[in-house]
Amino acid sequence: MTTATKFKAYAALNSGEKLQPWEYEPEPLQVDEVEIRVTHNGLCHTDLHMRDNDWNVSQYPLVPGHEVVGEVTEVGEKVTSLHKGDRIGVGWIRNSCRSCDHCLQGEENICREGYTGLIVGHHGGFADRLRVPADFTYKIPDALDSASAAPLLCAGITVYTPLRTYIKHPGMKVGVMGIGGLGHLAIKFARAMGAEVTAFSTSLNKQEQAKEFGAHNFQQWGTAEEMKAIAGSFDLVLSTISSETDWDAAFSLLANNGVLCFVGIPVSTLNIPLIPLIFGQKAVVGSIVGGRRFMAEMLEFAAVNQIKPMIETMPLSQINEAMDKVAANQARYRIVLLAD
Amino acid sequence: MTTATKFKAYAALNSGEKLQPWEYEPEPLQVDEVEIRVTHNGLCHTDLHMRDNDWNVSQYPLVPGHEVVGEVTEVGEKVTSLHKGDRIGVGWIRNSCRSCDHCLQGEENICREGYTGLIVGHHGGFADRLRVPADFTYKIPDALDSASAAPLLCAGITVYTPLRTYIKHPGMKVGVMGIGGLGHLAIKFARAMGAEVTAFSTSLNKQEQAKEFGAHNFQQWGTAEEMKAIAGSFDLVLSTISSETDWDAAFSLLANNGVLCFVGIPVSTLNIPLIPLIFGQKAVVGSIVGGRRFMAEMLEFAAVNQIKPMIETMPLSQINEAMDKVAANQARYRIVLLAD
Repeated sequence: MTTATKFKAYAALNSGEKLQPWEYEPEPLQVDEVEIRVTHNGLCHTDLHMRDNDWNVSQYPLVPGHEVVGEVTEVGEKVTSLHKGDRIGVGWIRNSCRSCDHCLQGEENICREGYTGLIVGHHGGFADRLRVPADFTYKIPDALDSASAAPLLCAGITVYTPLRTYIKHPGMKVGVMGIGGLGHLAIKFARAMGAEVTAFSTSLNKQEQAKEFGAHNFQQWGTAEEMKAIAGSFDLVLSTISSETDWDAAFSLLANNGVLCFVGIPVSTLNIPLIPLIFGQKAVVGSIVGGRRFMAEMLEFAAVNQIKPMIETMPLSQINEAMDKVAANQARYRIVLLAD
Repeated sequence: MTTATKFKAYAALNSGEKLQPWEYEPEPLQVDEVEIRVTHNGLCHTDLHMRDNDWNVSQYPLVPGHEVVGEVTEVGEKVTSLHKGDRIGVGWIRNSCRSCDHCLQGEENICREGYTGLIVGHHGGFADRLRVPADFTYKIPDALDSASAAPLLCAGITVYTPLRTYIKHPGMKVGVMGIGGLGHLAIKFARAMGAEVTAFSTSLNKQEQAKEFGAHNFQQWGTAEEMKAIAGSFDLVLSTISSETDWDAAFSLLANNGVLCFVGIPVSTLNIPLIPLIFGQKAVVGSIVGGRRFMAEMLEFAAVNQIKPMIETMPLSQINEAMDKVAANQARYRIVLLAD
C-alpha cells in the first residue's frame, strides 16, 4: 500500500537557514490518509515565519508549504470520499480533535484541543509528495485552476472567514487595510459578498489595481484630512497588514457597532480606547484561517464568482528566491510554486 | 393641554455640587410626548458622573434620574399607544433619529446620528413629573412591581443587551466580573438564558449571595493558581467593574472564539495581546444600554422569569445620602428612590 521511495522535499535544516533539497522517508500511509503528488504550492509569509522559528514552534528539518494542490496517488483503506486522480487541496490545518463543539460545527480553526498545523511537527507541501488525513483535504472545483486555487487554501480562507462572519447584509461598508496577498483577495471576496468596499493603502500607486480587484473606493492611508472625513463610517475594517501603523486612525474609522478585525499580526500589543469602544458598541477581534465548513464553502464561492488571486509562478526549485521576494514585499500578489 | 405649575425636582446647580430642591417650568407638552407622575427612580452611577460632569456633556441646572417609573398623567394629541394611568418606564435614551438603519432595527442605542440621553440637555426623573417622547417609554409588565422595574431600565438593559447578543446557546460558559448593580443582574439574566454562570469578585464574602443570584460557580478574583486553572474556558466574560484590574488575567479567561465585553468603564485605554486575539479568534467589545427592541424584550423576559434587582429603597428627598452611598460602593445592589 505504501511506496518505499523517499519523498523529495525542500527543507530548512536549522532555524533561519535557506531551504535546500532534502529527502525523507514518509511515515506509513495511515488508513484515513491520502498521498498526494504535489503540483502547486502557494507561498505564504507564514512559511517564512516557520522557517525562521518566529513563533517558537518550528521543528527541523522543516519542510514548509501549506497552500498545497495536487493529485491523489494513494488512498488509505478507510478513505471513501477520495479516489486516485482527484484534484485536491490542503491548507494550514492538518487535523483536529474532531469531537469538541467547535470541531463538530466545522470550526476546526478554533478547536478547543488545538488543531495540528500542517507544518508544525509534520512536513509540508514543498515536496514531490505529501501524506495527510483525507478529511482535511478539499476537492478543487473544476472552475478553479490549480495555480489559482493554491493561495485560496490559506490566504483565501483567512480573509473569507471574517468577511463571511461579519458581513451581515449587502451594502455593508467594509474597509480593507493593506493590498497584498491577503488584502487583494479580501477586496475580491468582500465585493462578491455585496459589500461596499474601500481599499486602504499607503501606496497611491495601488489605487488603479485596487479598483480592478473590485474596490468601490480607494483611500490613501494617512492623509489626515481625508481620513477624518470618513471617520465613523465603516461597519467592518479588516486589517491584513503586518507592520505598525496609526491604530487610533484605524479604530476611528469604525461606525457604531463596527468591527476592527485583525488577520495580520502587526504588533504584539494593541491599545484600545475603551470609552469609544463602549459608547459606540464596537469590537476589536481576531480571526484565524478557517474550519472545514468555511473552507468548502469558500472554494465553491470562489468558483462560482471566479475569485482568483493575482499570482506569479516560479519553479519550486527557486524557493529561496521566492522567499526573498516575499520577505522584500515584492510579490504581486502571491507566488505559486510549480512542482519540478 | 399642559399643566401650568412648575415641576418640583432635585438638581445640581453646578458641576460637582450636591443636589438641592429646584423647580422648573416644563416645555409645553409636544404632540408626541407624555407626561408622567414619577413614582420610582433607580439610582445609577451615571447620575453621579453626570452630576460631576465627568464626561463633559453635563448642562446645569442638572436633574439626574434615568431609571424612571411612573404613571401617565397627560398624553400628547398624536400619541395613541399610551393612556392616562398607564404604568410606564423611561431609560437612558430619550430620543433618536428614528430613520437610520440601526434605529429601524430597534437599535437606537447605536443610532448613527447619536441618540439623545435623557439627562443630557434635558431634565431627568428626580422630580415629581417628567415629559418625554411616548415612543421611548415602555409599559411595565404587571408581573413586575415598580421598584423592581426601575433599575431594569438602565442597569438591566445594559447587561441584557450583550448577554442577548453573545449568548449563542444554552450551556455557554459565561463569566461575570463584579457583583454590583450591573453584575448581580447579569448573573440573573445569564442564568435565565441558560448559560453556565461563574461570578468573579474580589470579595470572598459575596460568594453566597452570588449563588443565590443564580451563579453556578464563584471564583475569587486574583488567586493566581485558581485563575490559571480556569484560563481559556469562558465563551463570554462580561466586565461590569469600573476599577482597574489585571486585564491580562481577564483576557486569558477566554476560550477560543471567546468574547470579553465591557459595560463598565474601568480604564481609558486597554492593552490587548494581539497574538492570542488572532490565534484564538477572540473579541474585545463594548456594549451600551440597549435599543427599544431589546428594552421591550428584556422587560417581558424579566417578568416571565421574575428577574428582579436586589434593591434598597430611600425617599427621593434623601438623594444626596443615596448618592454618597453609591459613591462609597455601599449600595446592595441598587438604590430605588421613592417619590416624596
